[in-house]
Amino acid sequence: MNIRFYNAKILTLKEDHKFEIVEGELWVKGDTICHVGVRTEKTAAGAGEEAPVWDREIDARGNLLMPGFKNAHTHTAMTFLRSYADDLPLQDWLNRQVFPREAQLTEDDVYWLNILGIMEYLTSGITSNFDMYFFPPVDAKASKDTGFRTVQTSGLNNYGGTVELMEENYHIVNEMSDLTTFLVGFHAEYTTSKELMEGVAALAHKLKSPVWVHNCETKLEKDECKERWGLTPTQLTDSLGMYEYGGGGYHCVWVEEPDFEIFKKRGLTAVTNPASNLKLASGICPTKRFVDEGISMAIGTDGPASNNCLDMFREMFLTSTLAKVREMDAECIGADEILYMATAGGAHAMQLTDCDSLAVGKKADLVMIDLKQPNMQPENNIIKNLVYSGSKQNVKLTMVNGKVLYEDNRFEIGFDPEEIYRRANAIIGRMK
Amino acid sequence: MNIRFYNAKILTLKEDHKFEIVEGELWVKGDTICHVGVRTEKTAAGAGEEAPVWDREIDARGNLLMPGFKNAHTHTAMTFLRSYADDLPLQDWLNRQVFPREAQLTEDDVYWLNILGIMEYLTSGITSNFDMYFFPPVDAKASKDTGFRTVQTSGLNNYGGTVELMEENYHIVNEMSDLTTFLVGFHAEYTTSKELMEGVAALAHKLKSPVWVHNCETKLEKDECKERWGLTPTQLTDSLGMYEYGGGGYHCVWVEEPDFEIFKKRGLTAVTNPASNLKLASGICPTKRFVDEGISMAIGTDGPASNNCLDMFREMFLTSTLAKVREMDAECIGADEILYMATAGGAHAMQLTDCDSLAVGKKADLVMIDLKQPNMQPENNIIKNLVYSGSKQNVKLTMVNGKVLYEDNRFEIGFDPEEIYRRANAIIGRMK
Repeated sequence: MNIRFYNAKILTLKEDHKFEIVEGELWVKGDTICHVGVRTEKTAAGAGEEAPVWDREIDARGNLLMPGFKNAHTHTAMTFLRSYADDLPLQDWLNRQVFPREAQLTEDDVYWLNILGIMEYLTSGITSNFDMYFFPPVDAKASKDTGFRTVQTSGLNNYGGTVELMEENYHIVNEMSDLTTFLVGFHAEYTTSKELMEGVAALAHKLKSPVWVHNCETKLEKDECKERWGLTPTQLTDSLGMYEYGGGGYHCVWVEEPDFEIFKKRGLTAVTNPASNLKLASGICPTKRFVDEGISMAIGTDGPASNNCLDMFREMFLTSTLAKVREMDAECIGADEILYMATAGGAHAMQLTDCDSLAVGKKADLVMIDLKQPNMQPENNIIKNLVYSGSKQNVKLTMVNGKVLYEDNRFEIGFDPEEIYRRANAIIGRMK
Repeated sequence: MNIRFYNAKILTLKEDHKFEIVEGELWVKGDTICHVGVRTEKTAAGAGEEAPVWDREIDARGNLLMPGFKNAHTHTAMTFLRSYADDLPLQDWLNRQVFPREAQLTEDDVYWLNILGIMEYLTSGITSNFDMYFFPPVDAKASKDTGFRTVQTSGLNNYGGTVELMEENYHIVNEMSDLTTFLVGFHAEYTTSKELMEGVAALAHKLKSPVWVHNCETKLEKDECKERWGLTPTQLTDSLGMYEYGGGGYHCVWVEEPDFEIFKKRGLTAVTNPASNLKLASGICPTKRFVDEGISMAIGTDGPASNNCLDMFREMFLTSTLAKVREMDAECIGADEILYMATAGGAHAMQLTDCDSLAVGKKADLVMIDLKQPNMQPENNIIKNLVYSGSKQNVKLTMVNGKVLYEDNRFEIGFDPEEIYRRANAIIGRMK
């Protein structure tokens, strides 16, 4: 499909994590953006090439095209546990509610539960997820089948998985589709033996992969790691040679002084998950410190059982304003920086730099934001409106890899929403 | 208009701040709910009365009817400053950005800016606002003209207003319409002389009105009050005899030990404004302590210049999860309590107990929530889904006083949205 957007405002990325809004057209040829900006005779697709024959021309009516959000940490298929067991401390919630029910999940369950999560991503303008869950090939297949882009990692720990299985999944997922990739990872220090972690490090070396892991989500996790090893989780995993090819940590709430140096030295990314950290009373991430140190950041929703929704607008607002209240300084971080984390920052973490921004040659992963809604008016500053006032309600259209998957509250993913809802209710219903 | 909702789930209020969901029908006769529940021969309107002749019958298709949200603290017409000046400390933001531009506002400006805010309220299922701004009769007229319910209070302080003007406005607004009421209030201790505050107290006595005021929004405000008077703002205002007929405080972040006793003794309500308190780096309200003390609470968005949106779903999530992270206890507050604050708690504060819940004889201020969206599935717990996962996107219909004002993204308020947006942009454009 070749699609022409016209009468659009287009959010483009400048240097230094800043954005600019240009007015004009955005052209998509197949899966790729082939023109951004004013239309003139000279701006046909490619150098000197003719404008494509359009399969569809979309009048954006002055609305905004922006890069799709990258949800940089989630457990998508946990949709079945949304609002099932809340208002519990993290360890009780995991051990008493989550783990016993997850043990009953089949691969087929996980497939359908992923599709429910993908639908919600699309309503929030999210065009790719960085997912850690059981059965990565099944998670990836749900993405491929719906047309959604996914980066899978492993949740390997003492209770499930092996390094060999991770290697197998790495190849299966990376070879499955242009939409599916896999990076090495494991669950967390507190659930994983040293031998397994050493195996992960060896695999990362072999595959030249970054390594991703839950890091300092709770104070307990960090304190116990220090008791066990005399090292923070970052120090320990680094000492095992995990980060030769980079990677990073999810949550990063309770990081300590030496950890910042390791993040910098290894080029790691800190993924913040603010809604989940509030709801499970885990704490508030030192976002400003990471930014001041020049450490890459990205934003994730965490899973729908701990959040309980998959909404990057809420996460952006929280990332910004929790930094402000943590530092007691309303000036400490700006809206551009937050929007960068939610888009290009996530893409950097997920090795999706071919769809990190709206520019010629990038994959067409984009969102149309309805500016003609009261929460986006007046248009004093569209970027601040997005970060501080934006809502799922403003998502008019979500496109992944050149294909419209969601438009005006309708899904174009090849599945009937009612059928997906019925299946999700049946899966948790079976466990009650 | 007589309107019948059928095939509905209906959120009804039980005792002890708990809710129950019943399935069936909800009937609206004029401005009043005349039936809730299963339809049988015996459940016609009133005792033995015939079912009304329906002007409209709405198939809710299994979706949820719930009471409209009460936005218990806001400055609606500040829509013009949304995303205009952000990321500043509260005092700089007020003195350098807000006050100079507010000084340029005409009554006509405020009228149109109110309508923009009312439109946004409707998209978020908000059916009434507790508003403090310039020109209360103009604010109230915008509500009356659009069909929205409002409670106005005064922002009287040393730089604007008089007690006499407040008394005049009290009568104008209370007599304007069934949709408009006025309660006594003033801006804050730090902006108001003792003489003026004494005048407010005298007026409250004369009118038998509660008194409302910004209270302990920032640490600076509280510290300076204690320096000036040796008393907290709550102690000082109480000592002036403000609260003979109740009332309460907005924000209530930096309250101190003796304040809780005064809130209890006087039956005051603490209105929390969590998004604003984060964004301006003011702090986190001691919500759990208020609840433990049995003190009434309500939730407000604050104005759109400090938030920057008017979204009670975001405020509910924040009220809940900021309490959890402040106490470092994920169990410390439940979803029912939060939903109560956002509906009946607000109604209690605003003296709108005739539209606090969905029951026979109450005014028909209600919202239809679309449960057939991925963020509301599966339906493990609809109340938790609302509080933790709900979004403006789920608001299918908003009714105030028996009249549908918003449905499927369309406004039925007698004004063209494009015209309202144009006016709002022109107003701020004039000041740039």
